[in-house]
Amino acid sequence: MLIATPQSMHFPDSLPLQSGTSIRAYDLSFETYGTLNAGKSNAVLICHALNASHHVAGVYVDDTGKVKNKSEGWWDTMIGPGKPVDTDHFFVIGVNNLGSCFGSTGPMQLNPDTNKIYGADFPVVTVQDWVDAQARLLDALGIQTLAAVMGGSLGGMQALSWTLQYPSRVRHAVVVASAPNLTAENIAFNEVARRAIVTDPDFHGGHYARHGVLPKRGLRIARMIGHITYLSDDVMNEKFGRQLQAPTLVALRTALPPEGALRLQSGKAGPAAPVGEEGGRLPERTSNPSPFKFSTQEVEFEIESYLRYQGDKFSEYFDANTYLLITRALDYFDPASAFGGDLSAALAKATAKFLLVSFTTDWRFSPVRSREIVKALLDNQCDLSYAEIDAPHGHDAFLLEDPRYLGVVRSYFQSKVAL
Amino acid sequence: MLIATPQSMHFPDSLPLQSGTSIRAYDLSFETYGTLNAGKSNAVLICHALNASHHVAGVYVDDTGKVKNKSEGWWDTMIGPGKPVDTDHFFVIGVNNLGSCFGSTGPMQLNPDTNKIYGADFPVVTVQDWVDAQARLLDALGIQTLAAVMGGSLGGMQALSWTLQYPSRVRHAVVVASAPNLTAENIAFNEVARRAIVTDPDFHGGHYARHGVLPKRGLRIARMIGHITYLSDDVMNEKFGRQLQAPTLVALRTALPPEGALRLQSGKAGPAAPVGEEGGRLPERTSNPSPFKFSTQEVEFEIESYLRYQGDKFSEYFDANTYLLITRALDYFDPASAFGGDLSAALAKATAKFLLVSFTTDWRFSPVRSREIVKALLDNQCDLSYAEIDAPHGHDAFLLEDPRYLGVVRSYFQSKVAL
Repeated sequence: MLIATPQSMHFPDSLPLQSGTSIRAYDLSFETYGTLNAGKSNAVLICHALNASHHVAGVYVDDTGKVKNKSEGWWDTMIGPGKPVDTDHFFVIGVNNLGSCFGSTGPMQLNPDTNKIYGADFPVVTVQDWVDAQARLLDALGIQTLAAVMGGSLGGMQALSWTLQYPSRVRHAVVVASAPNLTAENIAFNEVARRAIVTDPDFHGGHYARHGVLPKRGLRIARMIGHITYLSDDVMNEKFGRQLQAPTLVALRTALPPEGALRLQSGKAGPAAPVGEEGGRLPERTSNPSPFKFSTQEVEFEIESYLRYQGDKFSEYFDANTYLLITRALDYFDPASAFGGDLSAALAKATAKFLLVSFTTDWRFSPVRSREIVKALLDNQCDLSYAEIDAPHGHDAFLLEDPRYLGVVRSYFQSKVAL
Repeated sequence: MLIATPQSMHFPDSLPLQSGTSIRAYDLSFETYGTLNAGKSNAVLICHALNASHHVAGVYVDDTGKVKNKSEGWWDTMIGPGKPVDTDHFFVIGVNNLGSCFGSTGPMQLNPDTNKIYGADFPVVTVQDWVDAQARLLDALGIQTLAAVMGGSLGGMQALSWTLQYPSRVRHAVVVASAPNLTAENIAFNEVARRAIVTDPDFHGGHYARHGVLPKRGLRIARMIGHITYLSDDVMNEKFGRQLQAPTLVALRTALPPEGALRLQSGKAGPAAPVGEEGGRLPERTSNPSPFKFSTQEVEFEIESYLRYQGDKFSEYFDANTYLLITRALDYFDPASAFGGDLSAALAKATAKFLLVSFTTDWRFSPVRSREIVKALLDNQCDLSYAEIDAPHGHDAFLLEDPRYLGVVRSYFQSKVAL
């Protein structure tokens, strides 16, 4: 069993940001798994997506050595001893990005310039900025060159950006369920989520901390929208369909994992959730022969219960300003833009070898988007492997335990990345 | 030019509702176009979708006879003199559904039992209820049998339900861009929109009228979500892509029509919108060489501007309780449910002839869903025509001026419906 220990590193020098501003001093939370070899050549950096963190693999234990409940890292299926990214061979680093809310400097922390909580004053950060900060962490760890940089979704964008910002420091890039930029529809979903947060009366222009409140309504809506886009229509129909909420509430609420939050075996339902918020309000079924309650506000269908539960849970732990920042980083990422939209020209700098993986039912970052990257890399005669996995789970597939998917990554690390 | 005149009819007898309750007395707003023939055999009933109304075709004029700006009916491309549903031959009826907010009895009106505005006390209405109310309107107009009943999206569900509830009163049903029920994903989008409305602090449990406020924040979010699902990824990329909001704000804001609200020629951009709400706040571009403002709250991309504009506009005229009611009616519609999910068994009652139309890029009610209806009708040896139109516009295509689509409907009415 892999025991994870979060660490933190302070960076006293200011970091120039793509926006033209800078962040004066900052901390990065990170975890490492496995052992850095003498040549410092076996490091693998894992970049996280929207709501994940530096806690990539392993579990946490309490003071008595007991494993904490549900403390598995968000990519524990992928990373660990004997796993596809094998920590018996590789030194794996998970890092929480700047602006996040899991330990690294972000909007919930004190602005050293004002001694007030940053809130909305936290500077806008981009994928490029994150990669720059990650590079400084590697400097501090004495690692010049990564055996691989790896990530899914927004994490894949960071992996791709590494190969352009620091080409000589990356031997391999593993880009999973990602895209060379967001489509208009992707941006649209981000924008609706942001508007839900920003127009929540408890948002207070991003300075809710000063008012002692949290814009939970907006976060709930944002998360519900996110969940719809993480899942495929197929898997939603399979898991929920038009099934009505069971009166006994032995709910399917946790039947599917939120992106980056839960580990779950592909295709298996998770543990039943405890009776939740709506539980207390549920009326007894009456003699009405219809299965419906005929209510616009109560839960009728399981999918509603699932989404409400996920929204409620998320609003308890995620920071609203972080949500805005991270969705904006997604919107802004577009390496081709500086080359008139020519992705092949943009990727000409990359010297890494690549593994790209996409999932057939992912409509958020569909295989078509991965193929755009593949084509641009091929235009540059890059060494690459590409796997399009026929998986039913939509975008969330990149976090699930699909044997073909994990097999592809295992085989790539064994045959190509291994020293 | 077709001049439309809204009418209203009072129904003093209570209408039993599917929920087991009833509505005591009610009014229906409607319009008619063309002339009912002596045999009363040329009536075509048009059923509307989420946010449309009885104003299906023609224009309104003011007291001086001047055409009111943007007053075209929502299906004016389809219906009128010489149009596919030709009012020189057919007597076309548009009716506003119960629970809507455009004149028929709904949540914004007085509850005769309490003399207070209904608000959240307006009973939940279903597609079946709407069809029952429409049938009473036909009774009052002295029309026993419809030459055709026709609708798109939720309107198509009403047309389909007519053939099951009143099979002997329908000769033809034209079901466009519709589905035999909602998928889990469809319900999910409805639920997020409803939660945005219901959790708006100005919602007040649906009794916002008593508090003199409107839950506009929630309505804006609901509308933005809706818009994403009405458009195809392709058309969003074509019209907006990653295009930044132009500093001069000659915006593409009205480049695409909201469902049921605007008429627009397929493929052509609409007129430029006046400088809108965000306009006043736009900072001058500085010397920052980046094209971005690096802001999480300001508009960066055209698609954001478009969605915000649509949300703002919608929140000015649409009633929140009506939004809840109509999305619930969508959720509940499922004629197969009483037959163990067997749609063929459910449609066995239908004796009408059918035209079904779907659009290739409609991911809300995709062609697969129309084909389910086609298959079930074929299982019952129904007389049907089915057209799958290769259109780029997504679900909204059913409101646009696509010559192939309009040609199919024209030809069906000329060759099959015409007396």
